Amino acid sequence: MREFVVVGHDAPTSAEFSLDDLPGAGRLDVLCRCLTAGLLRSHGVREDTRVQLVLADEFTVGVDGGAVRRLNPDERSTAAVVRGALERRDEAVGAMSVEPHPGVELRRRGLADTLDAVAERAGLVALCEDGTPATESAPFDRDDPPDAGFVLSDHREFTREERDLLGEVADRRLRLGPEPLHADQAIVVAHHLLDTRGHEQV
Amino acid sequence: MREFVVVGHDAPTSAEFSLDDLPGAGRLDVLCRCLTAGLLRSHGVREDTRVQLVLADEFTVGVDGGAVRRLNPDERSTAAVVRGALERRDEAVGAMSVEPHPGVELRRRGLADTLDAVAERAGLVALCEDGTPATESAPFDRDDPPDAGFVLSDHREFTREERDLLGEVADRRLRLGPEPLHADQAIVVAHHLLDTRGHEQV
Repeated sequence: MREFVVVGHDAPTSAEFSLDDLPGAGRLDVLCRCLTAGLLRSHGVREDTRVQLVLADEFTVGVDGGAVRRLNPDERSTAAVVRGALERRDEAVGAMSVEPHPGVELRRRGLADTLDAVAERAGLVALCEDGTPATESAPFDRDDPPDAGFVLSDHREFTREERDLLGEVADRRLRLGPEPLHADQAIVVAHHLLDTRGHEQV
Repeated sequence: MREFVVVGHDAPTSAEFSLDDLPGAGRLDVLCRCLTAGLLRSHGVREDTRVQLVLADEFTVGVDGGAVRRLNPDERSTAAVVRGALERRDEAVGAMSVEPHPGVELRRRGLADTLDAVAERAGLVALCEDGTPATESAPFDRDDPPDAGFVLSDHREFTREERDLLGEVADRRLRLGPEPLHADQAIVVAHHLLDTRGHEQV
């Protein structure tokens, strides 16, 4: 399983936003691109992948590639999926999650708890521009286990508190190349590196 | 200069479409993602890159990273840039181009002429799922010249006629990995491979 956790610092925590202005909705456009970059490939879904969006450290929307139905690659319809989850946020109480669509889950859970859950399943890597070079580093080496968890930030950098948290739960901090990338671009590159590891020829 | 040409088979050739339904506008959402994947990186523009969208083999919208202003990464505002260009399509007559925004150019030009122009500047590579593996192939090897031109198809495969054309003008047909990718994802991976070529450590 490949898992991506994206920190949405300014993301909406209620359904009160317009699909006509996703950048104005706490840059939900960034998070939607991360969802589709993580879960979709040409004419199909990456079934062995889960993406979780942490909304303002209050809610987490998780989408499981093995179960999700009718996820389209455009931002607007993806944002509608997130909004549909937030419309039922009052049902997410304590440890109770809501599943508004198949494969989509909303929890009242912030970053720390979300990362703890991922770290139980896989080594956790923070992707950020001031990390160490990813070349031949786990999880991208051919001998690494197939499970991998990544955490990325939206259009903002990780805060000091988030960095402290990552220092505790993440195995390492990596950057994927010399150019600073958008979060969704980093997800595409991470998939590529995992897809091709161990291949002499891609 | 890195150049990406994306073939929009069903793309609109007039401004008569709604920004609320980009998938319904001949999958303009795909083309918008290609534009931003090609031109934007985190908090900046790839100045040495040009992306051209071929709209139904009739018009071509080119965006130059070195000149474009106020290009945002979301699909809707990018589609508005394309629509703004098409609003002035009647001024694009013969070899006359229109520049509706800085760095954005509309020409009445189909795929063949667009590819000819790119091929004059750089070796042309078609990116498609049935190409040969890209590993260590030009233009991704460290010793290759920096200029590179790529042509990709939108959500459809290249037609037979387009394949015949590519057979004449493209140096090679490559695939970037074992997983079939969306066109915008392929652009992100191509950038990554070019960014990191020649780097022992990325």
